[in-house]
Amino acid sequence: MIIGRVTGEIHSTINHPFYDSKKLLVVEKTDPSGKPTGDYVIAVDVVDAGVGERVLVLDEGNGARQVFDSTDAPVRSVVVGIIDEIQLEVG
Amino acid sequence: MIIGRVTGEIHSTINHPFYDSKKLLVVEKTDPSGKPTGDYVIAVDVVDAGVGERVLVLDEGNGARQVFDSTDAPVRSVVVGIIDEIQLEVG
Amino acid sequence: MIIGRVTGEIHSTINHPFYDSKKLLVVEKTDPSGKPTGDYVIAVDVVDAGVGERVLVLDEGNGARQVFDSTDAPVRSVVVGIIDEIQLEVG
Amino acid sequence: MIIGRVTGEIHSTINHPFYDSKKLLVVEKTDPSGKPTGDYVIAVDVVDAGVGERVLVLDEGNGARQVFDSTDAPVRSVVVGIIDEIQLEVG
Amino acid sequence: MIIGRVTGEIHSTINHPFYDSKKLLVVEKTDPSGKPTGDYVIAVDVVDAGVGERVLVLDEGNGARQVFDSTDAPVRSVVVGIIDEIQLEVG
Repeated sequence: MIIGRVTGEIHSTINHPFYDSKKLLVVEKTDPSGKPTGDYVIAVDVVDAGVGERVLVLDEGNGARQVFDSTDAPVRSVVVGIIDEIQLEVG
Repeated sequence: MIIGRVTGEIHSTINHPFYDSKKLLVVEKTDPSGKPTGDYVIAVDVVDAGVGERVLVLDEGNGARQVFDSTDAPVRSVVVGIIDEIQLEVG
Repeated sequence: MIIGRVTGEIHSTINHPFYDSKKLLVVEKTDPSGKPTGDYVIAVDVVDAGVGERVLVLDEGNGARQVFDSTDAPVRSVVVGIIDEIQLEVG
Repeated sequence: MIIGRVTGEIHSTINHPFYDSKKLLVVEKTDPSGKPTGDYVIAVDVVDAGVGERVLVLDEGNGARQVFDSTDAPVRSVVVGIIDEIQLEVG
Repeated sequence: MIIGRVTGEIHSTINHPFYDSKKLLVVEKTDPSGKPTGDYVIAVDVVDAGVGERVLVLDEGNGARQVFDSTDAPVRSVVVGIIDEIQLEVG
């Protein structure tokens, strides 16, 4: 899994029906200290995360589909947690 | 999932039968602001996306096969949405 | 599989129920000689690894779910071993 | 999926039985304009592609196994098409 | 699939039971000409490969599990062949 910060939302009207009622977030990947890595991922929200929050992202299709109780959802990336705190070793 | 811009189309006559009737798009990956990342992906179209349009791409085999109601399609990347707008946090 | 060193722990209260009772580790990826590669992964612990230990990480969803005897866990990365020693060829 | 150019062939006598009768190609990855990206993939051939040809490569295990009508083949990358032409938008 | 050269072995006593009786190799990734790419993978050996040998590595979980006749092995990367020769196009 990876971590990142929500930086925006994507709107799409012509799409696969699965995406019709989903909130699609832009997640900027960060390192554990919170520094952006320069990469991003588009992920479906299931924990009601908002812009600015640090989140845990699952980037794997079969697990992502289980989050939606589905065997056929065309989805790979899901925000599965909002991060309260990251304790990092100093040194 | 990732986002990108359709920049072209691929034609192939000698291929696995699955690809016979499919539109195969060249999608230039972009960051959320629309800037090319220098990478690309080849994806099958299912939303009738055209050159120049910004799209949402699913890059995962099992979900991609479900889009084609298939359990055995040799496919991994599918254009699953046309993007209307990306709202990005300023700052 | 990849190897790394545990550098911290992530705390999250709003998340998918699967993560409620799990220890979520920050693993800094390293090369075989122990040098950080600049990348990291967030992985669930199943071998009681602590900060500073070198670990073997499985980064693949279906195998990760099997570690938890689950078919529907939204998980991809698991710490599956603590490394005692890496014997590297000299030269 | 990705595209590339066949640059060579690999020979192996001690291997998993699946590979005994397969043609194993070295495929240099290219961008859509044909420029090498500096990366490569080793892929099993199913369209009788030869050195120098531009090809479409599927890099995903479950779909790759279906190409061989197998549920247990230890394979991930397959050359699934020979590319005739790539039409790219100018500008 | 990818190719590389075996450069070492990993020893671990505290681990998932699957790894108890397995030989765990450090494989330095190389390009087709044999030049290291700077990356590596940790892979389970099934062809009795030794340090210094060039090998073919399958890096995909479902196929890797099949190599061990298992549906639940937490494994992703397996050395599936020892490479005798790579014929590369000149020019």
